[in-house]
Amino acid sequence: MACSLPYEKALAMNRPQNIKGMRDHLPEAMILRQYIITTLTNVFERHGFEPLQTPLVEYAATLEGKIGDDEKLIYRFETHGGDKVALRYDQTVPLARVVGQYQGKLTFPWRRYAIGQSYRGERPARGRYREFWQADVDIVGSSSPIADAEIIATLTDSLTALGFHGFITLLNHRQIIGGIARVSGLDEQAAGGLYRAIDKIDKIGPDGVREELLRSGVDAAAADKILTIIQINGSASDVLEALSEQLANDERALQALTNLRAIIGRLAEMGIPPERYAISPSLARGLSYYTGCVFEAVVDNPPMGSLLGGGRYDELVGMFAGRPIPTVGLAFGIERLHDVMEELGLGPVSRTIPEVFVTIFSQELAGEALRLASELRASGLKVEVALDPGDKLGKQLKYADQRHIPFAVVIGPDELTRGEIVVKDLRSGNQRSIARDQAAAQIHAAR
Amino acid sequence: MACSLPYEKALAMNRPQNIKGMRDHLPEAMILRQYIITTLTNVFERHGFEPLQTPLVEYAATLEGKIGDDEKLIYRFETHGGDKVALRYDQTVPLARVVGQYQGKLTFPWRRYAIGQSYRGERPARGRYREFWQADVDIVGSSSPIADAEIIATLTDSLTALGFHGFITLLNHRQIIGGIARVSGLDEQAAGGLYRAIDKIDKIGPDGVREELLRSGVDAAAADKILTIIQINGSASDVLEALSEQLANDERALQALTNLRAIIGRLAEMGIPPERYAISPSLARGLSYYTGCVFEAVVDNPPMGSLLGGGRYDELVGMFAGRPIPTVGLAFGIERLHDVMEELGLGPVSRTIPEVFVTIFSQELAGEALRLASELRASGLKVEVALDPGDKLGKQLKYADQRHIPFAVVIGPDELTRGEIVVKDLRSGNQRSIARDQAAAQIHAAR
Repeated sequence: MACSLPYEKALAMNRPQNIKGMRDHLPEAMILRQYIITTLTNVFERHGFEPLQTPLVEYAATLEGKIGDDEKLIYRFETHGGDKVALRYDQTVPLARVVGQYQGKLTFPWRRYAIGQSYRGERPARGRYREFWQADVDIVGSSSPIADAEIIATLTDSLTALGFHGFITLLNHRQIIGGIARVSGLDEQAAGGLYRAIDKIDKIGPDGVREELLRSGVDAAAADKILTIIQINGSASDVLEALSEQLANDERALQALTNLRAIIGRLAEMGIPPERYAISPSLARGLSYYTGCVFEAVVDNPPMGSLLGGGRYDELVGMFAGRPIPTVGLAFGIERLHDVMEELGLGPVSRTIPEVFVTIFSQELAGEALRLASELRASGLKVEVALDPGDKLGKQLKYADQRHIPFAVVIGPDELTRGEIVVKDLRSGNQRSIARDQAAAQIHAAR
Repeated sequence: MACSLPYEKALAMNRPQNIKGMRDHLPEAMILRQYIITTLTNVFERHGFEPLQTPLVEYAATLEGKIGDDEKLIYRFETHGGDKVALRYDQTVPLARVVGQYQGKLTFPWRRYAIGQSYRGERPARGRYREFWQADVDIVGSSSPIADAEIIATLTDSLTALGFHGFITLLNHRQIIGGIARVSGLDEQAAGGLYRAIDKIDKIGPDGVREELLRSGVDAAAADKILTIIQINGSASDVLEALSEQLANDERALQALTNLRAIIGRLAEMGIPPERYAISPSLARGLSYYTGCVFEAVVDNPPMGSLLGGGRYDELVGMFAGRPIPTVGLAFGIERLHDVMEELGLGPVSRTIPEVFVTIFSQELAGEALRLASELRASGLKVEVALDPGDKLGKQLKYADQRHIPFAVVIGPDELTRGEIVVKDLRSGNQRSIARDQAAAQIHAAR
């Protein structure tokens, strides 16, 4: 057995390292990650979404032909039986596959959420990982604007529950951008370039967008018209009003405006405050499969940029179902949420799981310490107990402090006789004796 | 774009299917899975364990040379950069890798839990999957019997919290089996065969084990002695007593008995009832890396067999750390727990997430329905709202019933005037009007 090798030799064969771009999440980071996932799960379920879990491995054919050029980033391999398979790239294509596969079993409209890993063989960079987690919510099988509004309300409630204050969701519609291209006289190829150009307005500014449009062959008058339209701002109803004047000759754009008007009307009825959403005619969103409303949540106070986005995609799911199935949804990137929340100081204060460390006073009193630990756990407290009765009390307390555990308790012979325990608050250093049967309640209260 | 293909053609290219042995978990199954995971997480954290999450992909070299012949079941592939990588096979080797990699950052003894997927390219069979979830708890860096007892107490508390009543944890020790081999005069090769033979006693019975021992070259007197010892039963202290007589001449076995005696003493001090554990000298446990105490939880009422197991492995972690690091732990198989709990009818009764379905009475009252849904959600209820104001009320109620949602609410023009809503219990068919501002509290109470 390899186990019996000398450790030095074993270590030489086993240099411990994770794969670049795929991270280990140690407990301190996990506490915030789990808080995010639990909070999102609660909000999603309050909005009636149901959990779905699909394998991380799919047939390669399932993933192919859905995401354009990025397909080269997919991790592929062969199973022992020779099947060509791949690690999933997102949770949307697996959703579409599931809808096609279980159509007869599912009741539509179907609200599902999914929280898990996906994989992309990208060059690792700050905030970009090869293994990453997403939390998706989608409503499958409804083209109602109430469905779009429900997704945006879920987004708003989620960010609020996570502790975000200064954020806003920007809305646009694929057919508004299409309408802008059409009323400006762009041909189909130039219209494709329009998406890419206006998507950059936050980075390169209006002048940069104008230059890029001119470079791609758009004439100066058209470029000016486009810039005028995409810079319209104000309250949601003012922007819709102004857009309906600018796009008055484009039937599809007018329908898109009617759709957006219905969605924001529903948002108001759902009690979403007006400062939480705006219409942004320059919002493009990259993904090619969107067909209707698109949106993006932005933290603007303090300015942290885009957090996540989503939209309506009425054709992708149909690829596996043999019929069109209108769908709207969004995906939270857990890594991005984590990084921003850490920077803003949001989330739980605690850096450790245990709330109480039970020391062992002496060899003879070890059993008493274990009994006490069980009592405290039965009250719901998270309790770590010392493992080595031979360790000095000072060493045990130092360990608990290093671990950032807020309370340590001691039961020595005097305390045992009096039916008391000593509770030490390791944050303040204060300690006092309290009745053993009151200890759990008092620690609960002081947490 | 592929999206613009006719749906029939797209479907022909996209036959929706999951990979054999890797399952989709639809919402009904997910509700029990999430209940299991949440319950285990709560118990683990109450015992002071902290979460760790590692990537599902590891360097192939990290996984090689640790699990013997089963290494051929590992899924391997190459990244875009040409690195040889693999899907993890369990969560124990990644734990060992993490301990080696972050030794300086971790405080020992370290209690960590991990819940996630692993992969094995096995032939799929009933209860055996190629993608499966495990929930691991381990205490790294302590050789104290209190650590072993903590793991077994965590196991006991977990099964109790999940609703199991008739279960028992069987304990044994590698050096007891070693001692049995030695006092029976077996050579090293025959001792290896002994593990395999006695592990089968539940399947093939004592006579079968005897035959297998004879076939492997053990003489009749030795086989009889072995069978006498491994069939010793009774209370934990009686079995330990009998074993110490039988193994009186073997120093290592006597030390093992002392170790087991200490562990069960700690279990009693932790308040684990004596009917929850027993010493079973025939328990071998397959994994080659165990070095000390081994254990297995068995559901005996009704008889469902082994649920999970674990033990002490003092050498594996050291392979990545360059020094021995004593560790004890266990792994719950989520699929096995799920199957047994479903068969025993344990877990949540509900088959769906939403507790309330808010209908839309008419186009005009859609806004009122959305307002009501937000009020109910704000109270913490899980609420699904109708999406299509054009649907007849009967159709909406039928949908809610199909989805097994327990309550539906209706707000029509009369209710609106009176400040009431109609609450319909879809399980009993009963319905009544109640004051709108009392609705959330009453539904909470009636759930």
